[in-house]
Amino acid sequence: MSTVKLLSDAEKDPRVKAVFDDIRATRKSDFINNFWLYLAFDPALLKETWEGVKSVMAQPSALDPLTKELIYIAVSITNSCRYCVHSHTAAARAKGMTDEIYADLLRVVATAGRTNQLLNGLQVPVDAVFDMEAQKPDA
Amino acid sequence: MSTVKLLSDAEKDPRVKAVFDDIRATRKSDFINNFWLYLAFDPALLKETWEGVKSVMAQPSALDPLTKELIYIAVSITNSCRYCVHSHTAAARAKGMTDEIYADLLRVVATAGRTNQLLNGLQVPVDAVFDMEAQKPDA
Amino acid sequence: MSTVKLLSDAEKDPRVKAVFDDIRATRKSDFINNFWLYLAFDPALLKETWEGVKSVMAQPSALDPLTKELIYIAVSITNSCRYCVHSHTAAARAKGMTDEIYADLLRVVATAGRTNQLLNGLQVPVDAVFDMEAQKPDA
Amino acid sequence: MSTVKLLSDAEKDPRVKAVFDDIRATRKSDFINNFWLYLAFDPALLKETWEGVKSVMAQPSALDPLTKELIYIAVSITNSCRYCVHSHTAAARAKGMTDEIYADLLRVVATAGRTNQLLNGLQVPVDAVFDMEAQKPDA
Amino acid sequence: MSTVKLLSDAEKDPRVKAVFDDIRATRKSDFINNFWLYLAFDPALLKETWEGVKSVMAQPSALDPLTKELIYIAVSITNSCRYCVHSHTAAARAKGMTDEIYADLLRVVATAGRTNQLLNGLQVPVDAVFDMEAQKPDA
Amino acid sequence: MSTVKLLSDAEKDPRVKAVFDDIRATRKSDFINNFWLYLAFDPALLKETWEGVKSVMAQPSALDPLTKELIYIAVSITNSCRYCVHSHTAAARAKGMTDEIYADLLRVVATAGRTNQLLNGLQVPVDAVFDMEAQKPDA
Repeated sequence: MSTVKLLSDAEKDPRVKAVFDDIRATRKSDFINNFWLYLAFDPALLKETWEGVKSVMAQPSALDPLTKELIYIAVSITNSCRYCVHSHTAAARAKGMTDEIYADLLRVVATAGRTNQLLNGLQVPVDAVFDMEAQKPDA
Repeated sequence: MSTVKLLSDAEKDPRVKAVFDDIRATRKSDFINNFWLYLAFDPALLKETWEGVKSVMAQPSALDPLTKELIYIAVSITNSCRYCVHSHTAAARAKGMTDEIYADLLRVVATAGRTNQLLNGLQVPVDAVFDMEAQKPDA
Repeated sequence: MSTVKLLSDAEKDPRVKAVFDDIRATRKSDFINNFWLYLAFDPALLKETWEGVKSVMAQPSALDPLTKELIYIAVSITNSCRYCVHSHTAAARAKGMTDEIYADLLRVVATAGRTNQLLNGLQVPVDAVFDMEAQKPDA
Repeated sequence: MSTVKLLSDAEKDPRVKAVFDDIRATRKSDFINNFWLYLAFDPALLKETWEGVKSVMAQPSALDPLTKELIYIAVSITNSCRYCVHSHTAAARAKGMTDEIYADLLRVVATAGRTNQLLNGLQVPVDAVFDMEAQKPDA
Repeated sequence: MSTVKLLSDAEKDPRVKAVFDDIRATRKSDFINNFWLYLAFDPALLKETWEGVKSVMAQPSALDPLTKELIYIAVSITNSCRYCVHSHTAAARAKGMTDEIYADLLRVVATAGRTNQLLNGLQVPVDAVFDMEAQKPDA
Repeated sequence: MSTVKLLSDAEKDPRVKAVFDDIRATRKSDFINNFWLYLAFDPALLKETWEGVKSVMAQPSALDPLTKELIYIAVSITNSCRYCVHSHTAAARAKGMTDEIYADLLRVVATAGRTNQLLNGLQVPVDAVFDMEAQKPDA
C-alpha cells in the first residue's frame, strides 16, 4: 500500500532509465529497491533525490561508509521511518555491521532517547562552556 | 529557566556526592555540567541516569567513543533537544571531532531527514530482501 | 489490528448515528472511513473530534480546501502518522491534487526536513529581523 | 521573540475579553499567561482553542486533574514544546505534583523514550494477543 | 518483518534464560512478548533493558501502575512507536484501564498535540512565573 | 549560542562569496540571515544546501511561493525547529501571508497535530480505498 502507483514501465522514460542505470552502476548490482521504483512517479524528484543521497552516502568523505549508515539509522529510528530503518539497517549489514555493532548502536540510540526526554523535561540552561560562539569572530 | 530548582548544597546529600565524585573521576575533570547539577533534585534519578549513560558511553564497546557521540548527536538533533545537541557536540569535539567530520555528520543527518520525509509520505512497502526474519528460526 | 474494537452496531447509538449522518451529508457520500468507525467506541470523543475537523477543514476560510489538505499531509508525514498520510493524500487527490503537485509537496516537505536537521544541529541564533514582537505593543 | 505581535489592547475586542474573562473565572485568578495573550492576535482561534482546552482539562472526567497534567507534560516533552513543558509543569505543581511525583514522571517518560527507540529500530511484529480487534464485531 | 532474526533457541543461553525467567516471575505469566524474544539477539542489551523497564514500571513508586502505563502510552503515541502503543495499551487494560479512561487519555494526548503545534508555531516567550529557578539557590 | 563559530571573514573564501552573492541576487537584498552565515563554516555544505533550497523554493513550480512557505512552516513547527519557524514565518509574511492566513495555517497544523495523536493511538487499519497501489501496474 502506497500513496503513489508503481509504474511497471517506468524505465521507458529515459530520465528514469538514466537514474536506474546509475543506481545499478554505483551499487554494482541489478537490484533496485522499492524507494526508487515508487519515486519514479516523478522523474525529476527521483533524479534530484538519488543524486543527493549518492553524493552524501556513496562518495568518500570524512566519515567511513559504515559510520554514515549508523548515523542514518539513528535518525530514521528517531523519525519513526519504518522503510528507512529497514533499508539502512540492511545497507549497514552489507557494509560490515555485525550483531554486536548493531546492539551497540541501539544502546546509544536508546540512551539518547532516554536523556533527550529528561532534558526536554528539565529545560536545563546550556552551560556557557559548550558555546562555540563564545570564541567571538575577530574584528 | 528550568522546571526544577538548582540546589546550591546538593552535594551535602551523600548519594549526590557519590555520583558527582564518580563523574569527576570518570571524566578526569572537576567540571560538572548543568544536566547533572539540576538532576540532583532527585538523587535516585540522578544515580540511575548517570550509571546508564556511563555504562553506554564511557565503557569500551563495539563502537569507538567518537562514533557513539556522533550517533548521540544525530538522535538529539532529530528529537530537537537543544541542551543535548550542545553538550554532545562539545563532547564529540573533545573526543576529536573536527569541523570536517562535523560537516559530514550534518550532511548525513540532513539527508536522512530529507529521505525520511519522502518515505513517510510515499509509504512504500518494505522490500522482502530487507527482512532479517525471512531467515526463519530453525525448528 | 487496532487498540480498540470495531463495533458492528455503533450506529444504534443515536449520538454515533448523528455524527455519521453529518459526515455523509458534509461529504455527500455514503462512505465512512475507518477513523470514524473505530472512534465510535467513545461517542463523545467521536463527536468533538468530527466537529473540530469539520469546522477547520470543511468550512470556507482564508486558505482553499486543497492547500489545507497539503498542510495536513505535511504535518502527518512529519509526525509519521501512517493512517493520516494515506487518508489526507487521498483527500487531497479528491480535491484536485495532481501527481505534479504531489511531487512538489514532497519536495518542499523533504527540503524542510533537511534544513530542520541542519538548524537543530547548528543551533543558530534567530535573526532580530525575524522578530514580530520587536514591534512592541503601543503603550 | 514571537512570530506574532503582542497586542496591548487586545481586550478592547469583546471576543477577546469574553475569553479572558472566562479564563479568569475558570482559574479563579487574574493572571493570564502568554499563550492566551499572544493567541489573541486571532480572536476566533483564541476562542476555539481555549474552549477545547477547557473542556478537556477543566471539566470533571474519568481521569483526575493531576493525572491529565502529567499526560500533557509527557506529550509536550516528547514534542519538544518548550513553552508547553514549562506551563504544564507549573500547572501540575499547582495541582499537587511533588518533586517525588515529578521525578517518577520523568523516569517513566525517559524509559518510554528509551524503549520507543529500541522498538522503532527492531521493528518487531506486534503480538496477536495485543490486538483488540481480534475480538471481531459480531455479525 | 524485523531488523533482527528471531532465535528459536534463545533460552539455551543462560543469560537469556535468566531474564526470561525473571519476566515470567515478575508478571506471574508464561507469556513472553515479541519485544523480549527479539531483543534476545543480544543478551546484554536484553538484560539491561529489562532491568531498566522493570525497575521503573514494576516497582512501587510515587505513581500507581496504571498512571505509569498511561504516561508510557502518551509518549509512545507521540513518538509514533506502533509496537509500544499496542503493548502498553494492552498492559494498561490489564491494569484496569476502561474504555472511558482510554477515551480520556486520548482526549488529553490529542489536546496536547494540538496546543504543542500552536506554541511551537507562535514561539511565545515563557512566562517568568513558570520559572522554578527564579527561586535562586541560597548562597 | 551555536555549535559552530561565526566567521567574520567567511567571504574571503571565494566559494562562500559565490554563494552569498547568489543569495543576494536571488533575493534582491543585501541581507544574509544567520543560517547561511553560520553554515559558511563548511563552504561545500553551504553551497549544496543553498542550491537545494533555492531549486525548490525560489524556482517556479506546481505550487506558488506562498503555499510552499506555508508547507515549510508546517513541517518546521512539527519538528520543533525554532529557527526555521521564525525564518519561514518571516518569509511567508514577505510573500503575502496575512494574520488571517497565518491563523488558518495554525488552525490546520493544530488540527493535524490533534488527529495524528488519535490515529497513532488507535492504530486504525488503513481503508483499502486509500491505496493508490490497488490500481496495479499493467502487465
